[in-house]
Amino acid sequence: MNLVVHKCLQTHYRPFLQTNTDSEFEICNHNSYNGEKLLWSLCARTVCRFFSHSWENQYMETLDTSSDKNHLYIQIAERIKSWINEGTYLPGSKIPSMRQLSTKLDVSVSTVIQSYQLLERLGFIEARPQSGYYVKIRPLLQEAGIVTKPASAPRFVQTNNTFLDVIHACGDKSLAPLGAAVMHQDLLPTESLQRSLIKISRERAADCINYEIGAGNWQLRQELAKRSIEMGCDISPESINVTTGCMEAINLALKAVTKPGDIVAVESPTYHGHINALENLGLKALEIATSSQSGMDLDALEEKISKFDVKAVLVTPSFSNPLGSLMSDESKQKMVSLCSKYNVHIVEDDIYGELQFEGNRPLALKSFDKKDIVMYCSSFSKTLAPGYRIGWVIPPAKFFDKIEIMKFSNTVSPNSAAQIALADHLKNNNYDRHLRKLRQTLSQNMHLFSHKIIECFPEGTKITTPSGGCLIWVEFPKGINALELHEKALKHKISLIPGPLFSVTGKYENCIRINTGTLWNSNIEAALEKIGKLAHALAKK
Amino acid sequence: MNLVVHKCLQTHYRPFLQTNTDSEFEICNHNSYNGEKLLWSLCARTVCRFFSHSWENQYMETLDTSSDKNHLYIQIAERIKSWINEGTYLPGSKIPSMRQLSTKLDVSVSTVIQSYQLLERLGFIEARPQSGYYVKIRPLLQEAGIVTKPASAPRFVQTNNTFLDVIHACGDKSLAPLGAAVMHQDLLPTESLQRSLIKISRERAADCINYEIGAGNWQLRQELAKRSIEMGCDISPESINVTTGCMEAINLALKAVTKPGDIVAVESPTYHGHINALENLGLKALEIATSSQSGMDLDALEEKISKFDVKAVLVTPSFSNPLGSLMSDESKQKMVSLCSKYNVHIVEDDIYGELQFEGNRPLALKSFDKKDIVMYCSSFSKTLAPGYRIGWVIPPAKFFDKIEIMKFSNTVSPNSAAQIALADHLKNNNYDRHLRKLRQTLSQNMHLFSHKIIECFPEGTKITTPSGGCLIWVEFPKGINALELHEKALKHKISLIPGPLFSVTGKYENCIRINTGTLWNSNIEAALEKIGKLAHALAKK
Repeated sequence: MNLVVHKCLQTHYRPFLQTNTDSEFEICNHNSYNGEKLLWSLCARTVCRFFSHSWENQYMETLDTSSDKNHLYIQIAERIKSWINEGTYLPGSKIPSMRQLSTKLDVSVSTVIQSYQLLERLGFIEARPQSGYYVKIRPLLQEAGIVTKPASAPRFVQTNNTFLDVIHACGDKSLAPLGAAVMHQDLLPTESLQRSLIKISRERAADCINYEIGAGNWQLRQELAKRSIEMGCDISPESINVTTGCMEAINLALKAVTKPGDIVAVESPTYHGHINALENLGLKALEIATSSQSGMDLDALEEKISKFDVKAVLVTPSFSNPLGSLMSDESKQKMVSLCSKYNVHIVEDDIYGELQFEGNRPLALKSFDKKDIVMYCSSFSKTLAPGYRIGWVIPPAKFFDKIEIMKFSNTVSPNSAAQIALADHLKNNNYDRHLRKLRQTLSQNMHLFSHKIIECFPEGTKITTPSGGCLIWVEFPKGINALELHEKALKHKISLIPGPLFSVTGKYENCIRINTGTLWNSNIEAALEKIGKLAHALAKK
Repeated sequence: MNLVVHKCLQTHYRPFLQTNTDSEFEICNHNSYNGEKLLWSLCARTVCRFFSHSWENQYMETLDTSSDKNHLYIQIAERIKSWINEGTYLPGSKIPSMRQLSTKLDVSVSTVIQSYQLLERLGFIEARPQSGYYVKIRPLLQEAGIVTKPASAPRFVQTNNTFLDVIHACGDKSLAPLGAAVMHQDLLPTESLQRSLIKISRERAADCINYEIGAGNWQLRQELAKRSIEMGCDISPESINVTTGCMEAINLALKAVTKPGDIVAVESPTYHGHINALENLGLKALEIATSSQSGMDLDALEEKISKFDVKAVLVTPSFSNPLGSLMSDESKQKMVSLCSKYNVHIVEDDIYGELQFEGNRPLALKSFDKKDIVMYCSSFSKTLAPGYRIGWVIPPAKFFDKIEIMKFSNTVSPNSAAQIALADHLKNNNYDRHLRKLRQTLSQNMHLFSHKIIECFPEGTKITTPSGGCLIWVEFPKGINALELHEKALKHKISLIPGPLFSVTGKYENCIRINTGTLWNSNIEAALEKIGKLAHALAKK
């Protein structure tokens, strides 16, 4: 049967479409599609008509209401589908109610019901009880995940030569921002933060100009303490030390429990900033096997801890960087028990912890910390204002003073105005509402990015499918060199982070990390297409 | 001769007054008073009358113009003297012109001339060509300076237990601020910085919220480069890396040229933040003998460098902390040559470099740096806004990249809004005019503080008399314990820094550091008096 498949569906369902019977189309499940068959329970004629509408004519400014009812509801369905494909309604967002659409298009509600039912059957939208219809978040092609096998011995770190180029590319605003894990300012509450900053500049000019010596602004620490309940902890403001971003927090935490030459276990791959911090502190990295789905392999960790004198585990348990893995609560509890048993401290980087796509905020490792061994570190750099440089560390009680002294000699204190403005913002603005919006956008972006990547990148490419955060880890087929790809992408004004930066040994040479914390638009689509083309070209070399 | 000496003069000249002849009083020079004799070339009768006016009646609301001319000019002189002693006209400030005063007091100009000449002869005021009369900056009692003899071997640092108490006291706004080297906000351009911050928050909201990844805001680096000419350098913006305050700059500079266990030479006493940074970096401190007048003893330095494998010298050549010493240009040149000869890097802390009381800004060590061995570090924490946390490092070219990478993993970048606001402020506001005003105030404060200290502190106390900065180092007679004094002062709501914090060995147990960067008022006077009383009590123990 000669079927003109809609371009959008070509993109998303290309590998799955095949004719089944005369009356049905079936999604073939050779790639398992979450193991689920999607049945196209429409008669062949309707589907043909539905799909044959050309891409160029997708904008129907007027509906042909003279045609019979059967055709009208398909026209309406197709228009909604256009809105979805165009990005007017993004995955996870609510579409107009049936009554609204009926009024807007001047058709009967029963016709709209038929349209919605069609779209629901086709997997474009889903009904949510007592809420309405939402654009369906389509699952990704592959779900097996990525599991790594890093080098087996601890070793000192030597910064890769590419590091500085990558930092510069991350700071270059003329590039498509697929490199640094930075949210576009339109995803952040830029205006309301601006109002807070102006307000406190006016009202508390002297406080803004003065040092905030000690553990940090008290109001901010109070707001942070209030929020700690959501991560399963009950932290008092006295236990919190405000730092210049999460990296200072991590540096101080590591310094507190190690001395140069000590061994620190890390996920593999792990954030290049973590690796670089280990280098600067003269620490040895011990890379542990990690799964993109469940995080650090605890059996591998225990094996290493029992073999080597590991002083600390540096880990991002919720939406790790770069894999995006989320450890289950059970795993988190197990990790804390394991480290407690062996007297190993945990430095927990929870910077992405509030960016889950669905459900409650994941619990922190710290919430399972009965023996006070977890040094909790986080910041507002992914959720409010990277440029403010405000993070915090919640160390075990016995390290609190030591960390305060070390902070004093490292940077004295974080920027005062930023601390006061954030305290004001958290108190007076709806941070949770902002988070809900941000999570929804990141969830949609994750969907859009991953589908685009699967569409454009070479056959055999694997990608991670995190359930939170703003990062996709791409594993190209062997032979595609990420450092070369990075250089070529730079020439096309695209930043990305090549895989070897996330390893101590230069591993992951066929991997890249992609930032999704941006606005989905044609430039980003074009940048991903370009990376795809460059990768294809490198594959042929 | 039984002379009622004016209370103010008792304070300042008490140790020097003695009767000489019937017609002259001479400043006795048992304490040398700069080796200079000040002749009181007035007939005894006049001096008696001048001095006998009681303190309580110093405010003459009306002049007794009926008395003869000779008496009238003395009355006027006395009134001006009251203004000076009361602080209406501070040392270094201009007093009204003779014409203005003649009009104001309704007396003849010739009478005012006589009064001014009397005050000039008495050393209260001085004429400056084509400018008028100024309150004279009276030299201090002792000028021999303090020369230290620290421990002779390099050693690892262990933070003193008092450190955290001192940090907390420094951050406690309820205390009299004689501890931290912090300028009172009224000495800083709080309002115009506030305007800059509000302006850039409005106009560049997105830039404020975003990271400033890399070596820092380009406009700020341009302004810093422009200013480098005044310190004898010609630095390009490309050579400057903006940091989170001077302490981050120093940490990065030290890290770049050392590894844990290496030896770093420091002045003794030296800033407790320096000592603490050495501890955190696992470095050994080698304390070098230092003079409060000429800085680090270069012969001692050379001896130590030839004996030990010194990797770096950490030094504050202009208005050091805590001694306030200023190395001469010749010494600076010699130090750079010496270190070049032995391949030792210099980490130059120039944070007080713009705070000279008179003349041009001292040259930086960096200005003599032909072999590119000096890592120049500074910040705006003493001149504009401590709470902004903006400093910078100008490293030798070969370390630039290394430092940028290390900064990324330490704090990523300094606060963006602060960088942009300072760039705006430096470009559009008269920073030099502010500096002139700040220098004048600090100069006056140095005078007022030091005289008050000499007045109130126990006999035998030595103090430094820096020609710039905001610090006085007080050496009590042996037996007065600075840590005890610190604790007692805290109970009386006064912060100060005890001497042992400035040493690796707990030396300087009879010394304290006093911050003068505040507003001179009765609270500060009372705080100094209280410290004096506490010290007296400790001396008697």
